[in-house]
Amino acid sequence: MSGGLAGVFVPALTPFTRTLEADTGRFQAYCRWLLDRGADGLAVFGTTSEANSLSFAERTSLLEALIEAGIPAGKLLPGTGLSALPETVALTRHAVGLGCAGVLMLPPFYYKNISDDGLVAAYSETVERVGDARLKLYLYHIPQMSGVPITLTAMERLLKKFPQTIVGIKDSSGNWENTKAILTQFPQLATFPATEARLLEGMALGAAGCISASANMNIAMIRELIDAIRAKDKSAAPKQQTVAAIRQVMEKLPVIAAMKALYAQASGAADWAVVRPPLTGLSAAAATGMMADLDKAGFRAASALQGLPG
Amino acid sequence: MSGGLAGVFVPALTPFTRTLEADTGRFQAYCRWLLDRGADGLAVFGTTSEANSLSFAERTSLLEALIEAGIPAGKLLPGTGLSALPETVALTRHAVGLGCAGVLMLPPFYYKNISDDGLVAAYSETVERVGDARLKLYLYHIPQMSGVPITLTAMERLLKKFPQTIVGIKDSSGNWENTKAILTQFPQLATFPATEARLLEGMALGAAGCISASANMNIAMIRELIDAIRAKDKSAAPKQQTVAAIRQVMEKLPVIAAMKALYAQASGAADWAVVRPPLTGLSAAAATGMMADLDKAGFRAASALQGLPG
Repeated sequence: MSGGLAGVFVPALTPFTRTLEADTGRFQAYCRWLLDRGADGLAVFGTTSEANSLSFAERTSLLEALIEAGIPAGKLLPGTGLSALPETVALTRHAVGLGCAGVLMLPPFYYKNISDDGLVAAYSETVERVGDARLKLYLYHIPQMSGVPITLTAMERLLKKFPQTIVGIKDSSGNWENTKAILTQFPQLATFPATEARLLEGMALGAAGCISASANMNIAMIRELIDAIRAKDKSAAPKQQTVAAIRQVMEKLPVIAAMKALYAQASGAADWAVVRPPLTGLSAAAATGMMADLDKAGFRAASALQGLPG
Repeated sequence: MSGGLAGVFVPALTPFTRTLEADTGRFQAYCRWLLDRGADGLAVFGTTSEANSLSFAERTSLLEALIEAGIPAGKLLPGTGLSALPETVALTRHAVGLGCAGVLMLPPFYYKNISDDGLVAAYSETVERVGDARLKLYLYHIPQMSGVPITLTAMERLLKKFPQTIVGIKDSSGNWENTKAILTQFPQLATFPATEARLLEGMALGAAGCISASANMNIAMIRELIDAIRAKDKSAAPKQQTVAAIRQVMEKLPVIAAMKALYAQASGAADWAVVRPPLTGLSAAAATGMMADLDKAGFRAASALQGLPG
């Protein structure tokens, strides 16, 4: 078990207005709501946050807005990995300067077929240029989206080079063998699988918790599951089953648009459904199907989304 | 044949200093050199330019520096497609405001499995938000790098929507069947394959020319080839063969690092070899092999790179 962050971190959805502007007020209220419902922290500006559809300026001002709204910086793990080194450095410095608990960093994601040398150089230059001992870096492995896998050998080299700085990883590969290999080879890391569907097994193997898209909508139930696992309570197994069934419904859908459609319906605020291009909204038919499937899986929208800011 | 740009446009390499800063003076001199050697224009900030390793501020200031150096804006086709809509709009506006001949626009390249609806929405929002009749947009299809193909059906919808604005495409797919389909279905477009290896065939089918990585190092010979093709000169076929053989050598190498290594050697300026992470420099052994292979293919560095700014 590592000394890093632990529990459930939510890659918070970013709400937009009808004209595609980031809705700062709703974002603040939503992040507050996630923490109140049991999130250990917020991995804002992740893939699920449509972060790579946000400008640099939007990212910094939204992050500042959270802190102004009273969200403790120690609960924040913002995504700061961009495709250009100078911007990754600047965004990371900004987050560190605000006192964030850590940053979740994509590798530069435009160029493909990147060698381990190139990957190590990219992270190394970033760490050295940020040049701040407060930096706590969580690697973000999501090859199906970034196109740039963070290999185990690159991880080994980076951990040797920056043992005080690189303290965790989010493994969004969906490859459980890779997650297990990370847990075995790098027990010093705080390792977050990107799904809550195997929390029971993962935490037994040393996983720190999860950073999961569907933790947005199902945060309360995941909170209860983690608490049950930690308490070695018998209810953990059935809770895990329900959580996994709900997750499975969402995995069949474009999860960002699907959760936003769910929120629009639950809160009555139609703007919740807005996604930025290149994403597209969920069709009405798909939304109806989702509601039925979620209900069957044991998701009770009225209680799960109680108090969701509209 | 379209009424858009034509000939050989060079995705100019971006020179860096040893400390990874963009070298503005060398960039200006280099772009001047490319035009003097026969380039019809410069597709600056393309993939070969390591553009997605440059910050927004670096892109705007380097573009301004070219114009300050006397490069005509009418020769410039800068890349302006970023992953975030507001930044793509701002960068495109900047280029249009400077009077650039057009912009070469990647689709938003972080999110994958994008639908045609999403792709059309992304380009449409951009065009509408730029809101400037001077905008001439060239689509940039490079699925192996962007992860987001621009399908023929999306093209058809976009061309119907913005017939005055979307005037060309660079097809970097390396899929000649796709290039031929574009030439057949969209004869109104200025279509630029990303290779000079099939200029003779491509131009006969209506291609506007090429926008090719290796046009950096081989610009003079490509200029001569295009002139011979246009003049229906018999020398076109043997010239095409030599150009293709040189291209083939570079296709086996990481082309950006390889050309930069070649330039460092030819100019004596070691900094030319610098690439930004996540790319890595060419090994000395690979550079030696490249020089031998290029020579065999008919590339005469001394004359091809005569006057290259050091």
